[in-house]
Amino acid sequence: MSRWLLGEHLDGQRLWDDVRTMARIGGLEPKGICRLALDEQDNQARLWLAEQGGALGCSAYYDMLGNVFLRLEGRDSALAPLLIGSHLDSQRRAGAHDGALGVLAGLAVLRTLHDQNITPHRPVEVVAWTNEEGARFAPGASGSSWFAGQRQYDEIVNAIDGQGIRFGDALTQCLALLGAHGLAYRPRPFVPHAFLELHIEQGPILEALGKPVGVVNGIQGVNWYQVTVEGQANHAGTTPRNARRDAFDGAHELITALKAATLEQDDDLRFTIGTFALWPDSVNTIAQRATFTIDLRHPSQAVLSTLDARFHELAEQQWSSCSVSLKVSSRVAPVMFPDCLLDALRESAGRYCPDVPELVSGAFHDAIHLVHVCPTAMLFTPCRAGISHHPDEHIERDDATIATRVLADTTETLLNC
Amino acid sequence: MSRWLLGEHLDGQRLWDDVRTMARIGGLEPKGICRLALDEQDNQARLWLAEQGGALGCSAYYDMLGNVFLRLEGRDSALAPLLIGSHLDSQRRAGAHDGALGVLAGLAVLRTLHDQNITPHRPVEVVAWTNEEGARFAPGASGSSWFAGQRQYDEIVNAIDGQGIRFGDALTQCLALLGAHGLAYRPRPFVPHAFLELHIEQGPILEALGKPVGVVNGIQGVNWYQVTVEGQANHAGTTPRNARRDAFDGAHELITALKAATLEQDDDLRFTIGTFALWPDSVNTIAQRATFTIDLRHPSQAVLSTLDARFHELAEQQWSSCSVSLKVSSRVAPVMFPDCLLDALRESAGRYCPDVPELVSGAFHDAIHLVHVCPTAMLFTPCRAGISHHPDEHIERDDATIATRVLADTTETLLNC
Repeated sequence: MSRWLLGEHLDGQRLWDDVRTMARIGGLEPKGICRLALDEQDNQARLWLAEQGGALGCSAYYDMLGNVFLRLEGRDSALAPLLIGSHLDSQRRAGAHDGALGVLAGLAVLRTLHDQNITPHRPVEVVAWTNEEGARFAPGASGSSWFAGQRQYDEIVNAIDGQGIRFGDALTQCLALLGAHGLAYRPRPFVPHAFLELHIEQGPILEALGKPVGVVNGIQGVNWYQVTVEGQANHAGTTPRNARRDAFDGAHELITALKAATLEQDDDLRFTIGTFALWPDSVNTIAQRATFTIDLRHPSQAVLSTLDARFHELAEQQWSSCSVSLKVSSRVAPVMFPDCLLDALRESAGRYCPDVPELVSGAFHDAIHLVHVCPTAMLFTPCRAGISHHPDEHIERDDATIATRVLADTTETLLNC
Repeated sequence: MSRWLLGEHLDGQRLWDDVRTMARIGGLEPKGICRLALDEQDNQARLWLAEQGGALGCSAYYDMLGNVFLRLEGRDSALAPLLIGSHLDSQRRAGAHDGALGVLAGLAVLRTLHDQNITPHRPVEVVAWTNEEGARFAPGASGSSWFAGQRQYDEIVNAIDGQGIRFGDALTQCLALLGAHGLAYRPRPFVPHAFLELHIEQGPILEALGKPVGVVNGIQGVNWYQVTVEGQANHAGTTPRNARRDAFDGAHELITALKAATLEQDDDLRFTIGTFALWPDSVNTIAQRATFTIDLRHPSQAVLSTLDARFHELAEQQWSSCSVSLKVSSRVAPVMFPDCLLDALRESAGRYCPDVPELVSGAFHDAIHLVHVCPTAMLFTPCRAGISHHPDEHIERDDATIATRVLADTTETLLNC
């Protein structure tokens, strides 16, 4: 079968127009966007997407979680569709590209197939997953985790937002709206042929390398720890050093040891203490209790397991005569994407970008769930200074075009196999 | 002139009865006391004290700040009186001895003079200073700092408590009550011959040494610092170590250096980080800002000045690529009590306690202000485990008796000179 060279035909200006149009749905002044999951703006974004798909001859579907699919039928409609997409919801004060770029890149592939008048052998679908961000209803990745059988419907719909609104009630409104606008209801998940997700990097690596695109070969595993160091409150002036059980000192020493345990030659490991509090938190009182969290990430489960054991060992010691409790509050295993897909991405990327970098994703994405149902992989495109979840998030149009061309060519490869 | 040996005649049981009586004024169930400055209980305590003095033939006075004085007239009433005392107000959930013991020990000295039918050459006065604790109206030591000319009346009376009540209004109520109960108004401060204050140690040293009393030869100086470490918020998963400006890491490294600078052979220095906060304080976000306080104490101004310079040097460096701001929020110079008084205390203490320990006070007391108007010194008696500002505060009756005997004998020495 002849090659279509979808990437070369892809209209970068049209993609950029779509990005700017989508950025106006929930746009903030002077910049940034707010499309919280299942709010009015998020639902408008779904309808706009469905409308674009209709103009391209695609059918639009929604499922029990409000995930929206644009389906371009294949010559053999019985084949599992190739799935491309990401999410349209955002953080409360966000940039325009986190999630949206991946959906609009999928739309750009559909536009190219349509413009070239191509009917692929295998169906292709573009998806917008519901509530990836978790900014309104926590936790996030509701649509993709449910689709992949990783989280239960009942658990998801009982989440409550900050205004006391239930996820399930907001979802009912959304589904009614989608139905009223002529989208077809296809309640259940299905098994895709493969899933591809293009996303902004949300980190500084591609920008530093000066590359427009990177192949993501996996997603880091994450352990979250809640640590409590317990000492004895006392007067800061009257208690000599040798009589102290200062929880701050204990935490400081323990953290020095934890940091020493996580030092490595490569820069693959991420160790972050993002919260820290003292009690009673008074200038002239020795702290009775220090609490802090650890966010530990690494692409290798073996490394995470070794460090987990070491952390627990350290927590069994006394630090400045204080006792320590260390509890795992969350554990997500690393994901490695399959070589069959990575090879296709590498080959496509090589056409536009010599020495295409390979990265491990430090952030979670919908793809982390899709790996459980089908071959899955990701592409990253750089964002300025690694900034996301902020109106300052910024990408270059030319980078986005190139990354989307790589996505298009990889789509072509997968539709032809 | 013959010696009276006041200490030997002092009635330890009577002192303990007074301690228990006073503990019932504002007593909490099941234990502890609450006598916030100028509240109903605190005012009751003043009246009770004045009543006891009256029964001993003393005159009771109050001044513009509500400080209450019991005066035992001397044969030469023109001589400056020897002043003994402490405070009767307490923290919100406190023990019965912090402050009150010093006032009641003074009362015990007056009782002994009365029982022995002694009229000293020089007048002696027992004082209860207003609002030492600062628990209701901050800052504390209102009565003694005003008396010693260290703080202005206008500034003190404009303090507001947690219920919006002005210090000045609570004071007016108190003064009216004292006047109505027959105390005489003596508005202005005067220059005492000397000031002696017995206080619980509020630290663990005397208990560890097994000593009932210690001579306090000074009060540590204190510097308070407010430190801010400024980095860059970023995603905990996507930001490699070499691209981070983690304010927590910066604070951790800076504190390691600060602690190294404060290590010393002796255990005289007190370095306490009692408050610490991160912003935005999110598990998976690299901290943009860390703020913490330092409470630094030492008996020597030279040591404090050297460390102050070193702290400022360290704050000029970058730590984990973060910038630092270090500001002094409070500075109180160390106080050394004069040898003339210390020798008298040492001699008296030697009669009851061989090898009497000498301590530097780590906490502030009313005495820190009195040094500005007259020779001043202090005695400490142990409290269990160094605990104070808590209902668990505990002292032994026998220790209190011995310390008060030392106070009585020193009073005798000073009244006879």
